[in-house]
Amino acid sequence: MKKIGYLGPPGTFSELAARFYLDRLKKGGNYEEADAVCLSSFADILAAVESGELEEGLLPFENSTEGSINIILDLLAHRFKEVKIKEEAIIPVVHQLLARQWFSTDEIEVVVSHPQALAQCRGFIEQYLYRAQKKEVISTAEAARLVSLQQEPWAAIGTSLVAETFNLVVITGNVNDYPENATRFVIIAMQDSKPVPGCKTSLILSVNDRPGALSDILIEFAKRQINLTHIESRPTKSRLGDYLFFIDFEGHREDSHVRNALSCIKDYTISMRILGSYPAHSAAKERENS
Amino acid sequence: MKKIGYLGPPGTFSELAARFYLDRLKKGGNYEEADAVCLSSFADILAAVESGELEEGLLPFENSTEGSINIILDLLAHRFKEVKIKEEAIIPVVHQLLARQWFSTDEIEVVVSHPQALAQCRGFIEQYLYRAQKKEVISTAEAARLVSLQQEPWAAIGTSLVAETFNLVVITGNVNDYPENATRFVIIAMQDSKPVPGCKTSLILSVNDRPGALSDILIEFAKRQINLTHIESRPTKSRLGDYLFFIDFEGHREDSHVRNALSCIKDYTISMRILGSYPAHSAAKERENS
Repeated sequence: MKKIGYLGPPGTFSELAARFYLDRLKKGGNYEEADAVCLSSFADILAAVESGELEEGLLPFENSTEGSINIILDLLAHRFKEVKIKEEAIIPVVHQLLARQWFSTDEIEVVVSHPQALAQCRGFIEQYLYRAQKKEVISTAEAARLVSLQQEPWAAIGTSLVAETFNLVVITGNVNDYPENATRFVIIAMQDSKPVPGCKTSLILSVNDRPGALSDILIEFAKRQINLTHIESRPTKSRLGDYLFFIDFEGHREDSHVRNALSCIKDYTISMRILGSYPAHSAAKERENS
Repeated sequence: MKKIGYLGPPGTFSELAARFYLDRLKKGGNYEEADAVCLSSFADILAAVESGELEEGLLPFENSTEGSINIILDLLAHRFKEVKIKEEAIIPVVHQLLARQWFSTDEIEVVVSHPQALAQCRGFIEQYLYRAQKKEVISTAEAARLVSLQQEPWAAIGTSLVAETFNLVVITGNVNDYPENATRFVIIAMQDSKPVPGCKTSLILSVNDRPGALSDILIEFAKRQINLTHIESRPTKSRLGDYLFFIDFEGHREDSHVRNALSCIKDYTISMRILGSYPAHSAAKERENS
């Protein structure tokens, strides 16, 4: 049975994303049975995939309440250089207001969650939980655990899964300010995906620090009508001021126009690593299919 | 007396950065007296600056153990549209291994810290704390607080300031794997800086989602020999797939070649906000001067 690692504790968005991904595998039909395994750090997940202990790992790759995406980019750039991205999954983020028992929102004295979840529900908190003090903790699961131990009118912000895990009541559903909130996860494995229509490719580049270094590279994409979907620069670890770029674009690394662009770009870089090509999934597409 | 807000709790890198910045103000000599004030969220700091309650706010802007920089970029893009960046401060990040009393490293059973601090000290932990279980908490101050309450051989990773605050002993100093580790902070105010040699400018742009949209913009910088120092794209809040860009580059917004570039770039954007121009400080420069 295929094993897929995700970041614990159980009940957080990573477990939700893992379940979502397993469901999709089942619906797809052309996969063997798979099981989700909870690990305690991103590095443990990547190490287990590289060693072959796990077939796949699931990591948040954007806008997540589970730790900084910076950590994952650094791990991929500096430490785990064999793994590939084989798939992405866009998981709708729906926050709920949870407590041990039903309270009216104006009774709530403390609202506990991850800072990013609190930020995503700011409008709701200001309007309905105006009495409540905000308390930031490391994960939405930790928030739910704290609230489950409280006699006082405390509430946590988290998923329905976290409510289930800690036996909490949903006081109010869908409390995030932007209903279309979503988190992008990627599936890590030792091989990326075969070319299918609608692929994306992720790259790590390091370039010399000079004016125009990045535009020289981006022009190679633009000339071939290749659309970028994400770009980010990060200082290298050795000294502040030298930069790595993380770039996502539309197309598969085996498409001729992409191969062409990548071979031209190579001349402008100090190093280039293709993290993988994989089918792009939009949240809307997922919803239509579900 | 000028008031400068920073993110609490006391003892974290934000307080260290605030002290560092106040010291620099004192050394500069041409400033009035200033005082650092601890607030409980980035939004509270930005709101206090916009309302005039605080003159300045200090925010981490890159590679920080204090919450995700994503939250701050989102706050600046979507909510606090009046504030400017008036200065940056690069703070060397030096982690220490802390406990209630002296233990040898192989006695330590649990090592507690923020996930990013644990990641930055991974090599040290694997080599010397091989018996220890890792525990992730919301801040290095929270880690120190937990350890200060423990009878068992637990250790926290944090600054010497956090050791002071919670009366902990430094077991080992400088435990981060990369000695040149640094965090970039920015000072937020209602006005940015006057042009001086060696300035930087920060921009938020939104562009249409089409191939070449970003390279059209970057070419305008490259043509004028303007060096980019950071670039990052973020999905807009309304739907996944439309992007904002955060760009830092060398030069002041009043420099003629920069003014020129910005006026050309405006034609390619849906919206453009100049976060401010401010003197660039390198960590090396700070060390030389201190």
